[in-house]
Amino acid sequence: MLNVHLLPDLVEPMALQGGVIVVIDVLRATTTITTALGHGAERVIPCLEVDEARRVAAEHPQAVLGGERGGCPIPGFQFGNSPAEYRPELIDGRTLVFTTTNGTRAMMRCRAAAAVFIGSFVNLSAVCEVVRAVENVHLLCAGTNGKVTSEDVLFAGAVVHRLSKDDGDHFDPGRWNDSAQLAFDFWRCRAPNSTLEQIENSLRLSHGGRNLTSLGMQEDITLASEVDKFSIVPRLDLNSWEIRKS
Amino acid sequence: MLNVHLLPDLVEPMALQGGVIVVIDVLRATTTITTALGHGAERVIPCLEVDEARRVAAEHPQAVLGGERGGCPIPGFQFGNSPAEYRPELIDGRTLVFTTTNGTRAMMRCRAAAAVFIGSFVNLSAVCEVVRAVENVHLLCAGTNGKVTSEDVLFAGAVVHRLSKDDGDHFDPGRWNDSAQLAFDFWRCRAPNSTLEQIENSLRLSHGGRNLTSLGMQEDITLASEVDKFSIVPRLDLNSWEIRKS
Repeated sequence: MLNVHLLPDLVEPMALQGGVIVVIDVLRATTTITTALGHGAERVIPCLEVDEARRVAAEHPQAVLGGERGGCPIPGFQFGNSPAEYRPELIDGRTLVFTTTNGTRAMMRCRAAAAVFIGSFVNLSAVCEVVRAVENVHLLCAGTNGKVTSEDVLFAGAVVHRLSKDDGDHFDPGRWNDSAQLAFDFWRCRAPNSTLEQIENSLRLSHGGRNLTSLGMQEDITLASEVDKFSIVPRLDLNSWEIRKS
Repeated sequence: MLNVHLLPDLVEPMALQGGVIVVIDVLRATTTITTALGHGAERVIPCLEVDEARRVAAEHPQAVLGGERGGCPIPGFQFGNSPAEYRPELIDGRTLVFTTTNGTRAMMRCRAAAAVFIGSFVNLSAVCEVVRAVENVHLLCAGTNGKVTSEDVLFAGAVVHRLSKDDGDHFDPGRWNDSAQLAFDFWRCRAPNSTLEQIENSLRLSHGGRNLTSLGMQEDITLASEVDKFSIVPRLDLNSWEIRKS
């Protein structure tokens, strides 16, 4: 089955048991995590809360802190949540302790999963490659504070679209859940030619995109729209709770 | 604002305060309720549970009982949940006590609303007419047992599409929530010419549609796809908890 879940709360953790999950938070957590690892970070440790992130960072002397609250930087943190900040010369070889509420909450839903990957447009093809031959795929949209966000659904739709072109298990819409159908058609409508411009325009119209624009962070929307900038697939180790290149 | 909520649980009851709601459960509760009232039923009393429906019917000597569990008839009930059953000669002038879990649960979310209407393809234009000039519209998809159902989203998208053609408040996608964007594009993709055939095909592919097909109830999918068969808009009175033609 190819399942899209429009929010973490819309799937029971046990329904994910043994499945392969792709966690999606396009604006901006999963884009930023992939960028950090793509630019050489050794690992990313996701944290739900700011205080928790500070505690975890204190346990790792070489760690740097990253994240945001309400789209704004956190006092004492070296990095925010903009992928642009994670330049190779600043992040290469480092441990990044990263706090993101919606993304981390989505990852916490996956404790019974067989594998948890991190997806966004910047690693679309690599993600598709990893899940292509998998029997039970779950594309888990993080949303924002319990609301469905269209940028996450757009990316889920891009993955469904790619997989549907194969001749494998995921080719048959009879094996998609209803939300996978929604995501597929949303992608077909919004980005029929899969261009950066179409993706960018769709992201700009979303609630999250409008927020970023109002904060003067339009550049992040462009960076989040760059399909296949990286060929890595970050993977969350559920035992160590660390994300590394798989 | 023009809001689509993909499931009742995805909106807080207080967020609906003062708003005008359209409750949507295309397969089949809101189609059937509209058919019953369109064929002359005096009122429909929605109930969550079978036992509750029996109690309410006992209090109304002229009442008839309708509803389903798992797509199947309920022992002792005169009607199921197929719109085909509610023929004028059987339902005209009667009070229908109707049990539907998902639809009733959606209605219960609306206690703080200014008005609650019942929508489905069979009264699409009438519903659009009623909400056209309203400032805060909420299209509330009932879903099925906590899962998003694409047929409800398809109808929500049809309403968004119609309203977006006007030059009123709802014309501006900047005033839609992200789920309204999803629904709009789903409708555009699935039913670009708004034909019965396109709607029917989309409904057949949904989880609910596949269930009906497996139960031999394909005819209900056709009946649920008949745009504007009725020109009435059922309205739920939140005090009396009765649905009547508005």
